Amino acid sequence: MAPTARAILFDLQGTCTDFFTSVVAAARAIDGGEHPDLDWGPFVSDWRKAYMRALGNDATAKAGAAPAWRSVREVYRQALEALLAERGLDGFDEDQLVGLVLAWEEQEPWPDVVPGLARLRARHTLGALSNADVPAVARTAKAGALPFDVLFSAQMFQAFKPDPAVYLTSARWLSLDPPDIMLVACHAYDVAAAHRLGFQTAFVPRPDELGPGAGAEPAPESALLARDFLDLADQLGS
Amino acid sequence: MAPTARAILFDLQGTCTDFFTSVVAAARAIDGGEHPDLDWGPFVSDWRKAYMRALGNDATAKAGAAPAWRSVREVYRQALEALLAERGLDGFDEDQLVGLVLAWEEQEPWPDVVPGLARLRARHTLGALSNADVPAVARTAKAGALPFDVLFSAQMFQAFKPDPAVYLTSARWLSLDPPDIMLVACHAYDVAAAHRLGFQTAFVPRPDELGPGAGAEPAPESALLARDFLDLADQLGS
Repeated sequence: MAPTARAILFDLQGTCTDFFTSVVAAARAIDGGEHPDLDWGPFVSDWRKAYMRALGNDATAKAGAAPAWRSVREVYRQALEALLAERGLDGFDEDQLVGLVLAWEEQEPWPDVVPGLARLRARHTLGALSNADVPAVARTAKAGALPFDVLFSAQMFQAFKPDPAVYLTSARWLSLDPPDIMLVACHAYDVAAAHRLGFQTAFVPRPDELGPGAGAEPAPESALLARDFLDLADQLGS
Repeated sequence: MAPTARAILFDLQGTCTDFFTSVVAAARAIDGGEHPDLDWGPFVSDWRKAYMRALGNDATAKAGAAPAWRSVREVYRQALEALLAERGLDGFDEDQLVGLVLAWEEQEPWPDVVPGLARLRARHTLGALSNADVPAVARTAKAGALPFDVLFSAQMFQAFKPDPAVYLTSARWLSLDPPDIMLVACHAYDVAAAHRLGFQTAFVPRPDELGPGAGAEPAPESALLARDFLDLADQLGS
Protein backbone atom coordinates (compact mmCIF):
# COMPACT_ATOMS: atom_id res chain seq x y z
CA MET A 1 0.00 0.00 0.00
CA ALA A 2 1.20 3.51 -0.82
CA PRO A 3 2.02 5.87 2.05
CA THR A 4 -1.08 7.67 3.24
CA ALA A 5 -1.72 10.99 1.53
CA ARG A 6 -3.54 13.63 3.58
CA ALA A 7 -4.84 15.23 0.39
CA ILE A 8 -5.32 13.94 -3.15
CA LEU A 9 -5.34 16.39 -6.06
CA PHE A 10 -6.88 15.32 -9.35
CA ASP A 11 -6.33 16.61 -12.83
CA LEU A 12 -9.81 17.33 -14.15
CA GLN A 13 -10.21 17.28 -17.95
CA GLY A 14 -9.45 13.80 -19.25
CA THR A 15 -8.61 12.31 -15.85
CA CYS A 16 -12.01 12.93 -14.23
CA THR A 17 -14.06 13.78 -17.28
CA ASP A 18 -14.75 12.35 -20.70
CA PHE A 19 -14.40 15.60 -22.60
CA PHE A 20 -14.37 13.84 -25.96
CA THR A 21 -17.90 12.44 -25.69
CA SER A 22 -19.20 15.63 -24.02
CA VAL A 23 -17.72 18.06 -26.52
CA VAL A 24 -18.54 15.96 -29.60
CA ALA A 25 -22.19 15.70 -28.48
CA ALA A 26 -22.38 19.45 -27.81
CA ALA A 27 -20.70 20.27 -31.12
CA ARG A 28 -23.07 18.06 -33.12
CA ALA A 29 -26.04 19.73 -31.45
CA ILE A 30 -24.66 23.23 -32.10
CA ASP A 31 -23.77 22.40 -35.70
CA GLY A 32 -27.25 20.97 -36.30
CA GLY A 33 -26.13 19.04 -39.37
CA GLU A 34 -25.05 22.17 -41.26
CA HIS A 35 -21.63 20.66 -42.04
CA PRO A 36 -22.37 17.05 -43.10
CA ASP A 37 -18.76 16.45 -44.16
CA LEU A 38 -17.36 17.53 -40.79
CA ASP A 39 -16.57 14.48 -38.64
CA TRP A 40 -16.70 15.96 -35.13
CA GLY A 41 -14.82 13.08 -33.49
CA PRO A 42 -11.43 13.67 -35.16
CA PHE A 43 -12.10 17.42 -35.08
CA VAL A 44 -12.47 17.46 -31.27
CA SER A 45 -9.43 15.22 -30.92
CA ASP A 46 -7.37 17.65 -33.04
CA TRP A 47 -8.82 20.61 -31.14
CA ARG A 48 -7.65 19.10 -27.84
CA LYS A 49 -4.20 18.39 -29.29
CA ALA A 50 -3.94 22.02 -30.41
CA TYR A 51 -4.85 23.12 -26.88
CA MET A 52 -2.21 20.82 -25.39
CA ARG A 53 0.40 22.21 -27.82
CA ALA A 54 -0.57 25.78 -26.91
CA LEU A 55 0.04 24.93 -23.24
CA GLY A 56 3.32 23.19 -24.05
CA ASN A 57 1.99 19.87 -22.81
CA ASP A 58 2.76 17.65 -25.78
CA ALA A 59 5.63 15.22 -26.26
CA THR A 60 7.86 17.92 -27.78
CA ALA A 61 7.57 20.27 -24.77
CA LYS A 62 10.53 20.87 -22.49
CA ALA A 63 10.19 19.16 -19.11
CA GLY A 64 8.63 21.45 -16.53
CA ALA A 65 8.10 24.28 -19.00
CA ALA A 66 4.75 26.05 -19.34
CA PRO A 67 3.75 29.25 -21.13
CA ALA A 68 2.57 32.31 -19.20
CA TRP A 69 -0.99 31.99 -17.91
CA ARG A 70 -3.89 33.18 -19.97
CA SER A 71 -7.54 32.24 -19.99
CA VAL A 72 -8.04 28.70 -21.24
CA ARG A 73 -11.35 29.82 -22.69
CA GLU A 74 -9.30 32.05 -25.00
CA VAL A 75 -6.86 29.24 -25.80
CA TYR A 76 -9.73 26.99 -26.93
CA ARG A 77 -11.25 29.85 -28.91
CA GLN A 78 -8.04 30.61 -30.80
CA ALA A 79 -7.38 26.92 -31.44
CA LEU A 80 -10.92 26.53 -32.78
CA GLU A 81 -10.61 29.45 -35.16
CA ALA A 82 -7.25 28.20 -36.42
CA LEU A 83 -8.63 24.68 -37.02
CA LEU A 84 -11.71 25.95 -38.82
CA ALA A 85 -9.63 28.24 -41.05
CA GLU A 86 -7.13 25.45 -41.77
CA ARG A 87 -9.94 23.19 -42.98
CA GLY A 88 -11.80 25.87 -44.86
CA LEU A 89 -14.85 25.47 -42.62
CA ASP A 90 -17.03 28.52 -42.21
CA GLY A 91 -20.59 29.49 -41.58
CA PHE A 92 -20.41 29.36 -37.79
CA ASP A 93 -21.93 32.45 -36.19
CA GLU A 94 -20.69 34.03 -32.96
CA ASP A 95 -23.24 32.21 -30.78
CA GLN A 96 -22.14 28.90 -32.23
CA LEU A 97 -18.45 29.66 -31.70
CA VAL A 98 -19.11 30.68 -28.09
CA GLY A 99 -21.21 27.56 -27.56
CA LEU A 100 -18.48 25.32 -28.95
CA VAL A 101 -15.87 26.84 -26.63
CA LEU A 102 -18.17 26.67 -23.57
CA ALA A 103 -18.73 22.96 -24.25
CA TRP A 104 -15.23 22.48 -22.76
CA GLU A 105 -16.44 23.95 -19.47
CA GLU A 106 -19.06 21.34 -18.57
CA GLN A 107 -18.05 17.74 -19.11
CA GLU A 108 -19.44 14.41 -17.95
CA PRO A 109 -17.29 12.44 -15.52
CA TRP A 110 -16.09 8.91 -16.35
CA PRO A 111 -18.39 6.33 -14.66
CA ASP A 112 -15.82 5.38 -11.98
CA VAL A 113 -15.14 8.96 -10.85
CA VAL A 114 -18.06 9.83 -8.57
CA PRO A 115 -18.16 6.46 -6.75
CA GLY A 116 -14.36 6.44 -6.47
CA LEU A 117 -14.18 9.98 -5.04
CA ALA A 118 -17.04 9.16 -2.65
CA ARG A 119 -14.98 6.31 -1.19
CA LEU A 120 -11.77 8.35 -1.00
CA ARG A 121 -13.48 11.36 0.56
CA ALA A 122 -13.81 9.93 4.05
CA ARG A 123 -10.04 9.58 4.60
CA HIS A 124 -8.58 12.27 2.36
CA THR A 125 -9.07 15.91 1.45
CA LEU A 126 -9.94 15.80 -2.25
CA GLY A 127 -9.15 18.62 -4.64
CA ALA A 128 -9.26 19.38 -8.34
CA LEU A 129 -6.02 20.82 -9.75
CA SER A 130 -6.80 21.94 -13.27
CA ASN A 131 -5.35 24.14 -15.97
CA ALA A 132 -8.94 25.12 -16.86
CA ASP A 133 -10.38 28.48 -15.75
CA VAL A 134 -12.26 28.80 -12.44
CA PRO A 135 -15.76 28.80 -14.03
CA ALA A 136 -14.90 25.69 -16.07
CA VAL A 137 -13.70 23.81 -12.98
CA ALA A 138 -16.66 24.97 -10.88
CA ARG A 139 -19.27 24.21 -13.54
CA THR A 140 -17.83 20.79 -14.32
CA ALA A 141 -17.68 19.88 -10.63
CA LYS A 142 -21.22 21.12 -10.04
CA ALA A 143 -22.74 19.52 -13.16
CA GLY A 144 -21.06 16.18 -12.43
CA ALA A 145 -21.65 16.34 -8.64
CA LEU A 146 -17.95 15.67 -8.08
CA PRO A 147 -17.42 15.61 -4.30
CA PHE A 148 -14.26 17.73 -4.17
CA ASP A 149 -13.37 19.59 -0.98
CA VAL A 150 -11.38 22.27 -2.81
CA LEU A 151 -11.08 23.44 -6.40
CA PHE A 152 -7.76 24.80 -7.57
CA SER A 153 -7.46 26.36 -11.02
CA ALA A 154 -4.43 27.62 -12.91
CA GLN A 155 -6.26 30.95 -12.95
CA MET A 156 -5.74 31.21 -9.18
CA PHE A 157 -1.99 30.74 -9.58
CA GLN A 158 -1.68 32.69 -12.85
CA ALA A 159 0.44 29.77 -14.00
CA PHE A 160 -0.19 26.51 -15.85
CA LYS A 161 0.82 23.00 -14.92
CA PRO A 162 3.60 21.84 -15.14
CA ASP A 163 4.92 25.13 -13.69
CA PRO A 164 6.21 24.15 -10.21
CA ALA A 165 4.39 27.17 -8.71
CA VAL A 166 1.03 25.47 -9.36
CA TYR A 167 1.90 22.36 -7.36
CA LEU A 168 3.86 24.11 -4.61
CA THR A 169 1.27 26.85 -4.04
CA SER A 170 -1.43 24.19 -3.83
CA ALA A 171 0.59 22.46 -1.09
CA ARG A 172 1.07 25.73 0.79
CA TRP A 173 -2.65 26.53 0.57
CA LEU A 174 -3.44 23.08 1.97
CA SER A 175 -0.86 23.60 4.78
CA LEU A 176 0.75 20.33 3.70
CA ASP A 177 4.16 19.26 2.43
CA PRO A 178 4.40 17.67 -1.05
CA PRO A 179 4.98 14.12 0.35
CA ASP A 180 1.62 14.37 2.13
CA ILE A 181 -0.19 15.03 -1.16
CA MET A 182 -0.92 12.67 -4.07
CA LEU A 183 -1.39 14.02 -7.60
CA VAL A 184 -3.57 11.85 -9.85
CA ALA A 185 -3.64 12.29 -13.61
CA CYS A 186 -3.92 10.46 -16.91
CA HIS A 187 -1.23 12.72 -18.40
CA ALA A 188 2.42 11.76 -18.01
CA TYR A 189 3.69 15.38 -18.01
CA ASP A 190 1.50 16.24 -15.01
CA VAL A 191 2.49 13.16 -12.98
CA ALA A 192 6.17 13.68 -13.83
CA ALA A 193 6.16 17.33 -12.75
CA ALA A 194 4.53 16.50 -9.40
CA HIS A 195 6.93 13.59 -8.85
CA ARG A 196 9.96 15.82 -9.42
CA LEU A 197 8.68 18.14 -6.66
CA GLY A 198 8.29 15.34 -4.11
CA PHE A 199 4.56 14.67 -4.39
CA GLN A 200 3.12 11.18 -4.34
CA THR A 201 1.67 10.41 -7.75
CA ALA A 202 -0.82 8.02 -9.31
CA PHE A 203 -1.43 7.45 -13.00
CA VAL A 204 -4.88 6.45 -14.21
CA PRO A 205 -4.90 5.51 -17.92
CA ARG A 206 -7.80 6.89 -19.92
CA PRO A 207 -7.52 5.07 -23.25
CA ASP A 208 -10.70 6.71 -24.61
CA GLU A 209 -9.62 10.26 -23.71
CA LEU A 210 -9.14 11.30 -27.35
CA GLY A 211 -11.90 9.08 -28.66
CA PRO A 212 -12.91 5.42 -28.25
CA GLY A 213 -9.85 3.20 -28.64
CA ALA A 214 -7.45 6.10 -29.28
CA GLY A 215 -5.21 4.68 -26.55
CA ALA A 216 -3.79 5.82 -23.21
CA GLU A 217 -0.47 7.55 -22.66
CA PRO A 218 2.32 5.24 -21.46
CA ALA A 219 2.32 4.96 -17.66
CA PRO A 220 5.21 6.74 -15.92
CA GLU A 221 7.30 4.28 -13.88
CA SER A 222 7.45 6.48 -10.79
CA ALA A 223 3.68 6.60 -10.25
CA LEU A 224 1.24 4.27 -8.59
CA LEU A 225 -0.75 2.71 -11.45
CA ALA A 226 -4.53 2.45 -10.95
CA ARG A 227 -7.01 1.10 -13.49
CA ASP A 228 -9.57 3.70 -12.48
CA PHE A 229 -10.72 5.66 -9.38
CA LEU A 230 -12.30 2.56 -7.82
CA ASP A 231 -9.04 0.68 -8.16
CA LEU A 232 -7.26 3.72 -6.70
CA ALA A 233 -9.62 3.62 -3.70
CA ASP A 234 -8.89 -0.11 -3.31
CA GLN A 235 -5.14 0.44 -3.42
CA LEU A 236 -5.33 3.29 -0.90
CA GLY A 237 -7.44 1.20 1.46
CA SER A 238 -10.59 3.33 1.16
CA MET B 1 -37.56 41.05 -5.82
CA ALA B 2 -33.86 41.87 -6.06
CA PRO B 3 -32.15 41.73 -9.47
CA THR B 4 -30.99 38.20 -10.21
CA ALA B 5 -27.44 37.47 -9.14
CA ARG B 6 -25.55 34.89 -11.21
CA ALA B 7 -23.37 34.08 -8.21
CA ILE B 8 -23.79 34.56 -4.48
CA LEU B 9 -20.73 34.79 -2.24
CA PHE B 10 -21.13 34.15 1.48
CA ASP B 11 -18.98 35.25 4.38
CA LEU B 12 -18.29 32.04 6.31
CA GLN B 13 -17.48 32.47 10.02
CA GLY B 14 -20.44 34.00 11.80
CA THR B 15 -22.63 34.31 8.69
CA CYS B 16 -22.74 30.59 7.85
CA THR B 17 -21.37 29.12 11.05
CA ASP B 18 -22.01 29.38 14.77
CA PHE B 19 -18.38 29.66 15.79
CA PHE B 20 -19.27 30.64 19.35
CA THR B 21 -21.02 27.37 20.24
CA SER B 22 -18.48 25.30 18.28
CA VAL B 23 -15.36 26.88 19.78
CA VAL B 24 -16.74 27.07 23.35
CA ALA B 25 -17.60 23.34 23.22
CA ALA B 26 -14.17 22.45 21.83
CA ALA B 27 -12.42 24.67 24.38
CA ARG B 28 -14.28 23.11 27.32
CA ALA B 29 -13.36 19.64 26.08
CA ILE B 30 -9.70 20.60 25.62
CA ASP B 31 -9.54 22.34 29.01
CA GLY B 32 -11.11 19.31 30.70
CA GLY B 33 -12.13 21.34 33.75
CA GLU B 34 -8.54 22.31 34.62
CA HIS B 35 -9.50 26.01 34.87
CA PRO B 36 -12.80 26.04 36.81
CA ASP B 37 -12.76 29.85 37.08
CA LEU B 38 -12.41 30.34 33.33
CA ASP B 39 -15.81 31.09 31.74
CA TRP B 40 -15.23 30.01 28.13
CA GLY B 41 -18.23 31.92 26.75
CA PRO B 42 -16.92 35.45 27.38
CA PHE B 43 -13.39 34.23 26.67
CA VAL B 44 -14.30 33.06 23.15
CA SER B 45 -16.24 36.26 22.56
CA ASP B 46 -13.19 38.33 23.56
CA TRP B 47 -10.95 36.09 21.47
CA ARG B 48 -13.09 36.75 18.40
CA LYS B 49 -13.09 40.50 19.08
CA ALA B 50 -9.29 40.45 19.31
CA TYR B 51 -9.16 38.66 15.94
CA MET B 52 -11.51 41.24 14.39
CA ARG B 53 -9.33 44.07 15.77
CA ALA B 54 -6.19 42.41 14.37
CA LEU B 55 -7.84 42.35 10.93
CA GLY B 56 -9.01 45.95 11.27
CA ASN B 57 -12.65 44.90 11.13
CA ASP B 58 -13.99 46.60 14.22
CA ALA B 59 -15.92 49.85 14.51
CA THR B 60 -12.72 51.91 14.83
CA ALA B 61 -11.25 50.65 11.53
CA LYS B 62 -10.95 52.93 8.53
CA ALA B 63 -13.44 52.13 5.79
CA GLY B 64 -12.00 49.74 3.24
CA ALA B 65 -8.74 49.34 5.10
CA ALA B 66 -7.27 45.94 5.86
CA PRO B 67 -3.83 44.87 7.13
CA ALA B 68 -1.44 42.87 4.94
CA TRP B 69 -2.40 39.20 4.64
CA ARG B 70 -1.04 36.65 7.04
CA SER B 71 -2.27 33.26 8.13
CA VAL B 72 -5.44 33.58 10.19
CA ARG B 73 -4.32 30.50 12.11
CA GLU B 74 -1.42 32.65 13.33
CA VAL B 75 -3.71 35.58 14.10
CA TYR B 76 -5.88 33.39 16.33
CA ARG B 77 -2.78 31.89 17.99
CA GLN B 78 -1.30 35.30 18.83
CA ALA B 79 -4.63 36.62 20.08
CA LEU B 80 -5.03 33.52 22.27
CA GLU B 81 -1.60 33.90 23.84
CA ALA B 82 -2.19 37.59 24.49
CA LEU B 83 -5.58 36.91 26.13
CA LEU B 84 -4.23 34.11 28.30
CA ALA B 85 -1.27 36.25 29.44
CA GLU B 86 -3.53 39.24 30.12
CA ARG B 87 -5.71 37.12 32.41
CA GLY B 88 -2.84 35.30 34.07
CA LEU B 89 -4.05 31.95 32.76
CA ASP B 90 -1.43 29.31 32.24
CA GLY B 91 -0.99 25.57 32.30
CA PHE B 92 -1.99 24.99 28.67
CA ASP B 93 0.45 22.73 26.87
CA GLU B 94 1.32 23.02 23.17
CA ASP B 95 -1.21 20.36 22.11
CA GLN B 96 -3.96 22.22 23.94
CA LEU B 97 -2.99 25.56 22.39
CA VAL B 98 -2.93 24.01 18.90
CA GLY B 99 -6.28 22.33 19.56
CA LEU B 100 -7.85 25.59 20.71
CA VAL B 101 -6.69 27.40 17.57
CA LEU B 102 -7.81 24.57 15.26
CA ALA B 103 -11.28 24.72 16.82
CA TRP B 104 -11.76 27.86 14.68
CA GLU B 105 -11.26 25.78 11.53
CA GLU B 106 -14.25 23.44 11.87
CA GLN B 107 -17.49 25.08 12.89
CA GLU B 108 -21.12 23.98 12.85
CA PRO B 109 -23.42 25.82 10.44
CA TRP B 110 -26.49 27.68 11.70
CA PRO B 111 -29.62 25.49 11.19
CA ASP B 112 -30.93 27.54 8.23
CA VAL B 113 -27.70 27.43 6.24
CA VAL B 114 -27.66 23.99 4.59
CA PRO B 115 -31.38 24.02 3.62
CA GLY B 116 -31.09 27.64 2.45
CA LEU B 117 -28.01 26.97 0.30
CA ALA B 118 -29.64 23.82 -1.12
CA ARG B 119 -32.55 25.93 -2.38
CA LEU B 120 -30.32 28.69 -3.76
CA ARG B 121 -27.95 26.27 -5.47
CA ALA B 122 -30.21 25.43 -8.39
CA ARG B 123 -30.32 28.99 -9.74
CA HIS B 124 -27.04 30.49 -8.55
CA THR B 125 -23.36 29.67 -8.35
CA LEU B 126 -22.66 29.62 -4.61
CA GLY B 127 -19.28 30.47 -3.11
CA ALA B 128 -17.68 31.05 0.24
CA LEU B 129 -15.63 34.26 0.49
CA SER B 130 -13.79 34.09 3.77
CA ASN B 131 -10.87 35.73 5.52
CA ALA B 132 -10.03 32.32 7.01
CA ASP B 133 -7.20 30.19 5.60
CA VAL B 134 -7.87 27.63 2.84
CA PRO B 135 -7.83 24.59 5.19
CA ALA B 136 -10.26 26.30 7.57
CA VAL B 137 -12.70 27.09 4.76
CA ALA B 138 -12.37 23.61 3.23
CA ARG B 139 -12.69 21.76 6.55
CA THR B 140 -15.69 23.83 7.67
CA ALA B 141 -17.44 23.34 4.32
CA LYS B 142 -16.72 19.59 4.37
CA ALA B 143 -17.67 19.02 8.00
CA GLY B 144 -20.89 20.98 7.61
CA ALA B 145 -21.71 19.58 4.15
CA LEU B 146 -22.14 23.14 2.87
CA PRO B 147 -23.06 22.86 -0.83
CA PHE B 148 -20.74 25.57 -2.16
CA ASP B 149 -19.64 25.48 -5.77
CA VAL B 150 -16.42 27.39 -5.11
CA LEU B 151 -14.39 28.28 -2.02
CA PHE B 152 -12.48 31.54 -2.01
CA SER B 153 -10.10 32.32 0.87
CA ALA B 154 -8.15 35.47 1.67
CA GLN B 155 -5.10 33.21 1.43
CA MET B 156 -5.71 32.88 -2.32
CA PHE B 157 -5.71 36.65 -2.74
CA GLN B 158 -3.01 37.38 -0.15
CA ALA B 159 -5.36 40.08 1.07
CA PHE B 160 -8.11 40.34 3.67
CA LYS B 161 -11.64 41.64 3.28
CA PRO B 162 -12.44 44.54 3.06
CA ASP B 163 -9.48 45.04 0.68
CA PRO B 164 -11.14 45.68 -2.72
CA ALA B 165 -8.77 43.17 -4.34
CA VAL B 166 -10.57 40.32 -2.57
CA TYR B 167 -13.98 41.19 -4.02
CA LEU B 168 -12.75 42.24 -7.46
CA THR B 169 -10.49 39.21 -7.97
CA SER B 170 -13.38 36.95 -6.94
CA ALA B 171 -15.51 38.58 -9.65
CA ARG B 172 -12.75 38.16 -12.24
CA TRP B 173 -12.29 34.49 -11.31
CA LEU B 174 -16.03 33.95 -11.71
CA SER B 175 -15.96 35.77 -15.11
CA LEU B 176 -18.70 38.02 -13.78
CA ASP B 177 -19.11 41.75 -13.16
CA PRO B 178 -19.79 42.97 -9.59
CA PRO B 179 -23.49 43.75 -10.30
CA ASP B 180 -24.00 40.08 -11.23
CA ILE B 181 -22.74 38.92 -7.82
CA MET B 182 -24.39 39.18 -4.40
CA LEU B 183 -22.29 39.29 -1.22
CA VAL B 184 -24.04 37.98 1.89
CA ALA B 185 -22.71 38.63 5.40
CA CYS B 186 -23.71 39.33 8.98
CA HIS B 187 -20.92 41.93 9.26
CA ALA B 188 -21.59 45.51 8.20
CA TYR B 189 -17.97 46.20 7.14
CA ASP B 190 -18.08 43.33 4.64
CA VAL B 191 -21.44 44.32 3.14
CA ALA B 192 -20.39 47.97 2.94
CA ALA B 193 -17.13 47.18 1.14
CA ALA B 194 -18.89 45.02 -1.46
CA HIS B 195 -21.61 47.65 -1.94
CA ARG B 196 -19.02 50.37 -2.60
CA LEU B 197 -17.57 48.21 -5.40
CA GLY B 198 -20.92 47.71 -7.12
CA PHE B 199 -21.86 44.25 -5.84
CA GLN B 200 -25.39 43.38 -4.80
CA THR B 201 -25.46 42.79 -1.05
CA ALA B 202 -27.60 41.08 1.54
CA PHE B 203 -27.33 41.37 5.30
CA VAL B 204 -28.33 38.43 7.49
CA PRO B 205 -28.33 39.35 11.20
CA ARG B 206 -26.81 36.75 13.51
CA PRO B 207 -27.73 37.98 16.98
CA ASP B 208 -26.12 34.96 18.68
CA GLU B 209 -22.81 35.28 16.82
CA LEU B 210 -20.88 36.36 19.92
CA GLY B 211 -22.98 34.30 22.31
CA PRO B 212 -26.70 33.77 22.95
CA GLY B 213 -28.46 37.14 23.05
CA ALA B 214 -25.28 39.17 22.45
CA GLY B 215 -27.09 40.98 19.65
CA ALA B 216 -26.65 41.46 15.90
CA GLU B 217 -24.81 44.30 14.20
CA PRO B 218 -27.07 47.09 12.89
CA ALA B 219 -28.26 46.32 9.35
CA PRO B 220 -26.68 48.49 6.62
CA GLU B 221 -29.35 50.44 4.72
CA SER B 222 -27.96 49.61 1.30
CA ALA B 223 -28.33 45.84 1.67
CA LEU B 224 -31.21 43.46 1.17
CA LEU B 225 -32.21 42.38 4.68
CA ALA B 226 -32.95 38.68 5.18
CA ARG B 227 -33.87 37.01 8.47
CA ASP B 228 -31.83 33.93 7.57
CA PHE B 229 -30.80 31.88 4.50
CA LEU B 230 -34.33 30.48 4.06
CA ASP B 231 -35.74 33.99 3.99
CA LEU B 232 -33.00 34.95 1.52
CA ALA B 233 -34.05 32.03 -0.73
CA ASP B 234 -37.67 33.21 -0.46
CA GLN B 235 -36.75 36.78 -1.38
CA LEU B 236 -34.62 35.63 -4.33
CA GLY B 237 -37.42 33.41 -5.62
CA SER B 238 -35.61 30.11 -5.04
